[in-house]
Amino acid sequence: MDSEIFEQKVKKLLIDLGIDLKGININTFCEALTHTTFSNEHKNVQNFEYLEFLGDAIIEFVVTAEIYKRFPNYNEGMATQHRISIVNNHTLSTISRKLKIIDNIRTGNKAFINGQNEKVDSDFFEAFIAALYVEKGLDFATKFLLKNLEEYFHKVDFKKIADPKTAIQELLQSTGIVNIKYKCDKKSNLSLDKDKIELFECKLFVDDVNYGTGIGKTKKEAEKNAALDALHKQTNIQEN
Amino acid sequence: MDSEIFEQKVKKLLIDLGIDLKGININTFCEALTHTTFSNEHKNVQNFEYLEFLGDAIIEFVVTAEIYKRFPNYNEGMATQHRISIVNNHTLSTISRKLKIIDNIRTGNKAFINGQNEKVDSDFFEAFIAALYVEKGLDFATKFLLKNLEEYFHKVDFKKIADPKTAIQELLQSTGIVNIKYKCDKKSNLSLDKDKIELFECKLFVDDVNYGTGIGKTKKEAEKNAALDALHKQTNIQEN
Repeated sequence: MDSEIFEQKVKKLLIDLGIDLKGININTFCEALTHTTFSNEHKNVQNFEYLEFLGDAIIEFVVTAEIYKRFPNYNEGMATQHRISIVNNHTLSTISRKLKIIDNIRTGNKAFINGQNEKVDSDFFEAFIAALYVEKGLDFATKFLLKNLEEYFHKVDFKKIADPKTAIQELLQSTGIVNIKYKCDKKSNLSLDKDKIELFECKLFVDDVNYGTGIGKTKKEAEKNAALDALHKQTNIQEN
Repeated sequence: MDSEIFEQKVKKLLIDLGIDLKGININTFCEALTHTTFSNEHKNVQNFEYLEFLGDAIIEFVVTAEIYKRFPNYNEGMATQHRISIVNNHTLSTISRKLKIIDNIRTGNKAFINGQNEKVDSDFFEAFIAALYVEKGLDFATKFLLKNLEEYFHKVDFKKIADPKTAIQELLQSTGIVNIKYKCDKKSNLSLDKDKIELFECKLFVDDVNYGTGIGKTKKEAEKNAALDALHKQTNIQEN
């Protein structure tokens, strides 16, 4: 692609994203949107790799600091799980596509960039965030990033927490709640298929308030799921 | 340890490090210096783990951004190698000990903290940096961190770069240098032990200037070492 046409394309992308062009070096954004296959074919053209390296660290920091600010009662395990729920190729590639960043990259003639490659989409998003940081500063890049990640701060998947019962206990203790009780019942009417299977249903109570409910084939599993449910509910409560 | 005595100890540490106590919440630093073995034995005491999680991301970001700023001609591989040379348990634990951070932590009665555990030292340094960030802001934490890491920006170990010949070529190309030549000689007098071993010595030349020299058992190995030597020399030049 002709480099002037590419530059115009990049400028249009920035304008569409509401980014003021005043005082910025457009080359930084051109670099952020140049695939290695293009720089391999053209001398003296920088590709997005170094900016991607920088952007990766920026996103990790901004999201970590935001989690720390929003969820002061988390422990390290919950914070890690929440961060994984936000900073992953799937999420970043979704945003990369939504913002049409990935539609505006330049690749070499021989390049075949798979339209469904989440890693590539995500890498270009990282490089783009780094270009924003370089040209507009950390505050601007942070605001842009958090605006686009906002909904993911409300979604969190705690399933991979090794011990959700301890996690919810620690979370509630940090807010002054000490007495947690699980009440469990056998539910033979909860059938998963034609053959009736005996299941347990457990509820996590603090005094008389139900904080979470879980079902499982064993009492242990049902308690764990009740703890997970309570973790998700507590996270949403803290959001408000 | 009595919590008031601990607080005094932490305040003294901050004063010794030249950190103004005005307006800061000392509890954040107490948390940063509290080992899990202490919080396990005392109710309602937070340990350093969540701050360590935050500090890890801060250090990674600050060092990455600094490398990007100082070494604009690096490629991603060299930047990664330089970052590994700086952000590792050995370096961070060295600083943690130098600043006496590790001398001021509190642990449980039953705790046995190995004095030589670099991971623990390093973790507390990360937590301390996070406390600085929380209480004094990113600019302050960045300055403190970079001041203490300064010497490590001048030391870099490129040995793990998969392809140093390409790396130096790309680095020099980005500064406008195109013609790189390796001149190699057999050196039978360079003996490693009593039995004479034939070695190669290669020099990397740009025009008539020697950019780096390497020795190896094969020509390939000697060229690689010459490229590594040139990489280190170029890094130092860029420092000035």
